[in-house]
Amino acid sequence: MSRQPPHLESHVSLAHGNGGRLMRELIDEVFARELGDLLLDTHADAARLPLETAGAEVLFTTDGFTVQPLEFPGGTIGSLAVHGTINDLAVAGADPVWLSLNVFIEEGLETSLLSRIVADLGRAARDAGVGIAAGDTKVLRRGEGGGLVLATTGLGLRPPGVDLGLHRIEPGDRLLVSGPVGDHGTAVMLAREDFGLRGDLRSDAASVLPLTRAVRHLPGLRFMRDPTRGGLATVLHEIRRATGLGMEVDEATVPVNGPVRAVCELLGYDPLYLACEGRVVAVAAPEAADVVLAAWRALPEGREAAVIGRMADAGGGEVVLRTALGGERLLEELEDDPLPRIC
Amino acid sequence: MSRQPPHLESHVSLAHGNGGRLMRELIDEVFARELGDLLLDTHADAARLPLETAGAEVLFTTDGFTVQPLEFPGGTIGSLAVHGTINDLAVAGADPVWLSLNVFIEEGLETSLLSRIVADLGRAARDAGVGIAAGDTKVLRRGEGGGLVLATTGLGLRPPGVDLGLHRIEPGDRLLVSGPVGDHGTAVMLAREDFGLRGDLRSDAASVLPLTRAVRHLPGLRFMRDPTRGGLATVLHEIRRATGLGMEVDEATVPVNGPVRAVCELLGYDPLYLACEGRVVAVAAPEAADVVLAAWRALPEGREAAVIGRMADAGGGEVVLRTALGGERLLEELEDDPLPRIC
Repeated sequence: MSRQPPHLESHVSLAHGNGGRLMRELIDEVFARELGDLLLDTHADAARLPLETAGAEVLFTTDGFTVQPLEFPGGTIGSLAVHGTINDLAVAGADPVWLSLNVFIEEGLETSLLSRIVADLGRAARDAGVGIAAGDTKVLRRGEGGGLVLATTGLGLRPPGVDLGLHRIEPGDRLLVSGPVGDHGTAVMLAREDFGLRGDLRSDAASVLPLTRAVRHLPGLRFMRDPTRGGLATVLHEIRRATGLGMEVDEATVPVNGPVRAVCELLGYDPLYLACEGRVVAVAAPEAADVVLAAWRALPEGREAAVIGRMADAGGGEVVLRTALGGERLLEELEDDPLPRIC
Repeated sequence: MSRQPPHLESHVSLAHGNGGRLMRELIDEVFARELGDLLLDTHADAARLPLETAGAEVLFTTDGFTVQPLEFPGGTIGSLAVHGTINDLAVAGADPVWLSLNVFIEEGLETSLLSRIVADLGRAARDAGVGIAAGDTKVLRRGEGGGLVLATTGLGLRPPGVDLGLHRIEPGDRLLVSGPVGDHGTAVMLAREDFGLRGDLRSDAASVLPLTRAVRHLPGLRFMRDPTRGGLATVLHEIRRATGLGMEVDEATVPVNGPVRAVCELLGYDPLYLACEGRVVAVAAPEAADVVLAAWRALPEGREAAVIGRMADAGGGEVVLRTALGGERLLEELEDDPLPRIC
């Protein structure tokens, strides 16, 4: 689909970043055109947030996005910049309300590509019901920007009665994941020409709000987190470090899509370390695990949810993977970067 | 001053951005070490803001920072990233309360330089009384990042009774500026080796909170804005476009430091288009202009404040500059970028 803005040059130049007329045209033709209904006020230094807290807690988070390529099967850096940040609010039990958006454009980027990405960002924001209350655009010299880099900061409201956190995790709690892991990392990897591979794999990048809203009020739910950079294994190590408790994961129960498994075997990657962008890892009390599982499986986003393991009964210990063959191995902390610029 | 973090390699590598152990060490050794007292919670997906609004309005703003060089006389990209965003809240009449921080590091950046910049950022935040409630770090491949790019999003509270905005400007209102213009743009320009010039010029980069707090409750104060990219001339055009009113500026009354004037004459720049990072432009009712002026001149930051012109008495019209020689010329809207990556 062509989204060449009618009055703009075909490529972004440094002059589009100088605060003058060309910059205003870029803002109007791309950002205001695609996001107009989502914007609070493009002329104010600071926008007034009509924030009705009504007993809710105000949550705040930020994330930067550098994915290459900028468009990939299942998303773009634009929708990813919305999903990444609203998902951080969602797993904390909150409803995202407002975003800010920082755009760093490399000189020479096609304005039609920029428009497609901003349109995709707008769709993701509309679907999640968040507005964009503040924005800023800078243009970097050719060779300095990697095409396009985005950052979003999100403000959300956590309803009264939602109490989640690493501090609530107890020995014997169960570990769950809402769906197959590693799709995003694998899809972005395949979208890169330098691998010389093609597949019909799609990123799982999506809002996890339906998943988190379905379970966040359950009293036995302790903690949620979305496994992004570093994948499921990295979330498990974060839990281990914060709680001082080891855990056991049953490898056979971790959902991994067939094509992801095949590509990983071919290229020597472990899907447990690859990024997801639409999954949730949860820790729940033993008696609540099946309730969380049933709530997730009732949703299209959670059809393949699974209980994948349990926290140790006593302190100390490692993240242990029980393999399909009946053995066990340590799931070590990520050291080297298997796939840079995945998000 | 050496700020080489004791346990880190001397240069940032891609592996510092992968979400694993090296990244955690970078966060601990640089960000937590320099900003520890300012951080809300580095382990949560989203931080809970202890936000006591008490009748105040919540304001929100964001800005990206790409200045080259990263250190310049009078500041660094770190303090600039604090001042740029808190100043947008300040000119809206608010007190900044919380910031989020996005860091994009180019592979190969010296960790000692990164530490100095983060320390400078911390000092600026402490001085302004803002906390850092959320942060994210990404590492870009060598050649893709321009060394370091930052983004900050700010949340502020505007006290009851403060009413400022472009909509409040009326025909005949007076224009003021809080100090000399063009220092930041000129200082950064001179700090670039490729100009082959050196001077003792310093950037004016600073918090404008003392200036805005001194006048924001005055009933005759209509509007404030900080002239950054595009300088004073660009702010005047923003006022013209928003109000539909032309204005007259008396060139002789616009404060410009001697060295700035000399460098601009040498290189062919107009200081009215060069960035400031610690000045305020204000519009005030005729009877309030002298009150604003006196309040500013009583402060060290405002000793050289001046009334520089007035809004036209009727609609239409341009931004007209009355020159020192008694002539007049149109101050046109900025078209080309005189100095990229100035902020």
